[in-house]
Amino acid sequence: MKKQGLLLIISGPSGSGKGTIVEQLKAKEDFSVSISATTRAPRGAEQDGVHYFFRTKEEFQHMIDNQELLEWAEFCGNRYGTPRTYVTEKMMQGQNVILEIEVQGALQVKKLYPKGILIFLVPPNLEELGRRLTNRGTEDKEAINRRIHRALEEMEFVQEYDYVVINDTIEQATEDILSIVKAESMKCSRNKEIKKIFKGEI
Amino acid sequence: MKKQGLLLIISGPSGSGKGTIVEQLKAKEDFSVSISATTRAPRGAEQDGVHYFFRTKEEFQHMIDNQELLEWAEFCGNRYGTPRTYVTEKMMQGQNVILEIEVQGALQVKKLYPKGILIFLVPPNLEELGRRLTNRGTEDKEAINRRIHRALEEMEFVQEYDYVVINDTIEQATEDILSIVKAESMKCSRNKEIKKIFKGEI
Repeated sequence: MKKQGLLLIISGPSGSGKGTIVEQLKAKEDFSVSISATTRAPRGAEQDGVHYFFRTKEEFQHMIDNQELLEWAEFCGNRYGTPRTYVTEKMMQGQNVILEIEVQGALQVKKLYPKGILIFLVPPNLEELGRRLTNRGTEDKEAINRRIHRALEEMEFVQEYDYVVINDTIEQATEDILSIVKAESMKCSRNKEIKKIFKGEI
Repeated sequence: MKKQGLLLIISGPSGSGKGTIVEQLKAKEDFSVSISATTRAPRGAEQDGVHYFFRTKEEFQHMIDNQELLEWAEFCGNRYGTPRTYVTEKMMQGQNVILEIEVQGALQVKKLYPKGILIFLVPPNLEELGRRLTNRGTEDKEAINRRIHRALEEMEFVQEYDYVVINDTIEQATEDILSIVKAESMKCSRNKEIKKIFKGEI
């Protein structure tokens, strides 16, 4: 009997290192990373089914109406959502799945699927977040301040998450998340067959 | 501000390797292991305050009456219990504390202290448990069968625990428990000050 995979829902302010850590997790263990659907147009080399599922407004609305999305939200006039099928299929195959989504979407998913593991990734402190955003060198001071303001807003939701991981270094934060995955896989609530396994019945 | 230590409550049938794993945990990380109070007489080289706190029946009753015990139970006419002060003092000092106690006591502690982490340790299966008990060579077949019967009874309570750890090898089970400790220390419910820390307020 194949054990169902875990659903990891990772959020965190921009500058928290989410993207890099998700890449590390993929490299270290067999995680599937969910691909979002979006109504926005592809940019540069972005490919359908690799970076996003690119959909028309009508197609996206159809997905909402048919409850094909685990969560969705609108940003700057474009819609983004998590297709349900990809996630549930991978989990049924025993694969752990990662969703890297923002706070509102994360809480929507948790409501639908309480066994999902909500992880909030934070930089050690505000000062360090400012430093990291500045060091990227891609944005002006005003844009950085907006991101810091947004980070503070998102921090208001941290207590609705299951775990908080402080990203001091990428390596340590990746290891921390792997410990969470290992611990969660040992939860009795996820091992209801343990008595039968012990008795040799299955 | 010192973070409060975690309380680990480890149970498991005899032959599950509890004792050895607790020794390993102590050797690897800074855990305090709670010492039980008992009314039974010291055996061999057993020392008061090291192996047990040896108490008279009157003293033990006094501890019960004054709610000085986190849990207690009677076996073969002797009483055994966990003194509360040692546990709470160590935790307040930021130390993780291990209680190695049987199922009924473990569930009593969890009721009193819901933040306690209940870990059920099991051998991979019944057959292996039989093999381990036989290989000890210290008991006859009847005694071994009684232990196996008791293990099956205890397994009925596994779903009331938080985690189940399968002891395939001592090293792996020890690492598994350390992952649980690490993950639990990242629970948002145990990090209520995270927002203030992030903002640099504390």
